[in-house]
Amino acid sequence: MTPVERARRFRSTHAARLVRDFAGLLAIPDVAADPGGLRRTAGWIADRFNALGADAEVLGLDGAPPVVVGRIEGSGGGPTIGVYAHYDGQPVDPAAWSVPPFGPTLLTGRLEDGGEEIDLPADGTPVHPDWRIYARGSADDRAPIMALSAALEALQGSTPDATVVFLFEGEEEVGSPHLPDYLDAVADRLAADVWLICDGPVHQTGRPQVVFGVRGFAEVEIEVFGPPHDLHSGHYGEWAVNPAAALSDLLASMRDIDGAVAIEGFDQGAAPTDAEVDAARAVPDPGDLGFVPNDAHAYAEGLLTPLLNVRGIRSGDVGDASRNAVPATALASIDLRLVAGQDPVEAIQSVRRHAAARGFHLVDGKPSAAERSAHRLLARIDGVPGYPGVRTSPDHPAFEPVIEAVRAAAGDDPVIVPSFGGSVPLHHFEALGAPLAILPIANHDNNQHSPDENLRVGNLWYGVDVMAALLGG
Amino acid sequence: MTPVERARRFRSTHAARLVRDFAGLLAIPDVAADPGGLRRTAGWIADRFNALGADAEVLGLDGAPPVVVGRIEGSGGGPTIGVYAHYDGQPVDPAAWSVPPFGPTLLTGRLEDGGEEIDLPADGTPVHPDWRIYARGSADDRAPIMALSAALEALQGSTPDATVVFLFEGEEEVGSPHLPDYLDAVADRLAADVWLICDGPVHQTGRPQVVFGVRGFAEVEIEVFGPPHDLHSGHYGEWAVNPAAALSDLLASMRDIDGAVAIEGFDQGAAPTDAEVDAARAVPDPGDLGFVPNDAHAYAEGLLTPLLNVRGIRSGDVGDASRNAVPATALASIDLRLVAGQDPVEAIQSVRRHAAARGFHLVDGKPSAAERSAHRLLARIDGVPGYPGVRTSPDHPAFEPVIEAVRAAAGDDPVIVPSFGGSVPLHHFEALGAPLAILPIANHDNNQHSPDENLRVGNLWYGVDVMAALLGG
Repeated sequence: MTPVERARRFRSTHAARLVRDFAGLLAIPDVAADPGGLRRTAGWIADRFNALGADAEVLGLDGAPPVVVGRIEGSGGGPTIGVYAHYDGQPVDPAAWSVPPFGPTLLTGRLEDGGEEIDLPADGTPVHPDWRIYARGSADDRAPIMALSAALEALQGSTPDATVVFLFEGEEEVGSPHLPDYLDAVADRLAADVWLICDGPVHQTGRPQVVFGVRGFAEVEIEVFGPPHDLHSGHYGEWAVNPAAALSDLLASMRDIDGAVAIEGFDQGAAPTDAEVDAARAVPDPGDLGFVPNDAHAYAEGLLTPLLNVRGIRSGDVGDASRNAVPATALASIDLRLVAGQDPVEAIQSVRRHAAARGFHLVDGKPSAAERSAHRLLARIDGVPGYPGVRTSPDHPAFEPVIEAVRAAAGDDPVIVPSFGGSVPLHHFEALGAPLAILPIANHDNNQHSPDENLRVGNLWYGVDVMAALLGG
Repeated sequence: MTPVERARRFRSTHAARLVRDFAGLLAIPDVAADPGGLRRTAGWIADRFNALGADAEVLGLDGAPPVVVGRIEGSGGGPTIGVYAHYDGQPVDPAAWSVPPFGPTLLTGRLEDGGEEIDLPADGTPVHPDWRIYARGSADDRAPIMALSAALEALQGSTPDATVVFLFEGEEEVGSPHLPDYLDAVADRLAADVWLICDGPVHQTGRPQVVFGVRGFAEVEIEVFGPPHDLHSGHYGEWAVNPAAALSDLLASMRDIDGAVAIEGFDQGAAPTDAEVDAARAVPDPGDLGFVPNDAHAYAEGLLTPLLNVRGIRSGDVGDASRNAVPATALASIDLRLVAGQDPVEAIQSVRRHAAARGFHLVDGKPSAAERSAHRLLARIDGVPGYPGVRTSPDHPAFEPVIEAVRAAAGDDPVIVPSFGGSVPLHHFEALGAPLAILPIANHDNNQHSPDENLRVGNLWYGVDVMAALLGG
């Protein structure tokens, strides 16, 4: 029997108990506001893995929730695979939930689709894969932890081919402030051929997906200064610089409607490989979202290049409040989505240089009278560098066993996503020196970060199967 | 003696009494909220002109403040000159005034410069030209009415060369809604070789000015539609049209930073004549306003062309409220300043055509789902046509006696302003068929439309002298 076949036979026998066990984990509050709950969660996880023959330990740094670090020793016949997940969840507002966020509740389906509450199953009760477990952290992100422990249990009695090293953290939802320190402290235990970040949902179509990168992030604020005060537009509309018009001109010079960025040096990041472009073109489009999309490229292909997104503009007044004036200022708020190899600080600098090359004198704050008297075009451009993007080509050989495991578990080729469009601080894991991929488990409609978060049982089973396939043997 | 010499001798003898007479007019409330005050003001004016041998009449239309229409019969040796002024003033908030708005108060100078209140002068008291009369309507716009009556009094005993026809209205400050009807009703009494709109201030330098046009006005609102709801900028930043970026692109395509408009058909108005351009280049610049002006042209030259002013933009959020999203909409509020010969409705249409030519599908309101599914670029462009501009070349022969009169009164060449940048519904007077010019009397620092409105006595004297020179004889 293959590992996946063993996992399936195991969970067909123990499905009800696995659901109850998972409910036991989900009953422990896992939010930042409850440090004791986070510690109990970490303890529950380490105990479970140790009981199954793994070597798991709860490690704590002062003032931070602990991590669970562990190792499942393989036979040496397979690769060493790193598995990351986080056991903390988003904050909860119980009043906004249909069920208690930490009173795990089983439903026969999605609440919106008429799913009805049922008791947790007794041994022997058939468990339907469309059932849903409602609780904070059920999908994001305790599902992969439960799945790995269940796979390990399914394969008891033999030694897996692969060695798995794992790290489960407890403060991802507050920005992972201590993750670099933890990684640094236990780096010697985390050496692996490949690291899998087990978080997020599978594809909207229900197909499994493996994601080989994320974009980085930076923020930029551009404030263009017109006259010191609003001026009568009839008398001074030609005489004074209109900052709303100047800002529009500057933004239009930076990017076109399709999103192509025309800032010199902004494309310094990694150019997509042929394999990445091919994979991106094969990713299904998001479907009909109620608008005609830009047609410059396939959906995921666009995510392989950096983006300058205008998230807001404020200048003067509009509507009933509008006055016939040249406004004094115009403000744009921008987020930059960066590709691997693109330095956030340098990306911000390239925006500043672009504006300067178009004649703007850059000031640090509100311009002084002397600056106003010396320069016609004045702008303040402040940046907040976030973090860089990460991308590894899907054709890297370290990913072969991962894709093979997904295929074995799902009976279907996974969607190969060369990069998420969104930003995740995946770069922290680059310190480990291994190729990185994101391997999601949860259903796409899991209400992530919202009330009524839930995991489809079938997705938990997919997680068990894929973890078993990864362990091999 | 010239008429100006006669006016000066007269007012040197009667200065104190003229100031007291003017105070008598200013003591009558002249605001829209007090219809009785407006009627009494009109009566005061007609009585004064009739007492001086003019033929003045108070005419009323139902539901409107009356106008004073009159005629000063000349010898036939000069032109017929039309004089317009308005006897109503801006609303008052007495609490914001330093003096009672309708308790005319004489000060030795400008309040801000330490001017001190003095009693209205008794006969024989020397009256200093830098004294100021504080009251609502002292400058805007009862000064020209007082000046014309004083000039007529100064020239008593002989028949002037020119015939003056006049119309003083009482609802200019609420938009002159009945002016077209009044002009239509008494058009046969208002035939003239030239019409002078006596309103507004002289040049900031203190030099007299004659203004030969105003710009027209229209409003445009552009709303660009992105996705139906805000979308995650990382995942959809390339896929969905960003309306803030699309609006910026559209605005930048319509005008440059210097204010040059690139909309086809927007330049359909009157091209400036050589005389207008020469005059515009000779108008003093506004001086140092605390910024470096656009340098595409001399200040007033810019006012001879139409303007597209962006008075406000709103899209998404900025600052602490900014979210990493593609906003759903972007809104720009625009005012158009139109030159003579440019149709406001057509100007708005040219903006719409411009957007359509750049690929925008124009919708009437929020786009329907069908419109969203059919068109990538969607915009709503609504216009409010205001009124057209008016301009007559300063070298029109009808203006020769006007410019000569100003020169005689001021001892200085007037500033020849081919067009104000601002907008005034001067076009109503085009129905009278005569060349139009604006002949201001008041000091530039008269606090027009603000509390503590005031007239410098020297400017009243200038008004008396220029009216006497116009009457001639």
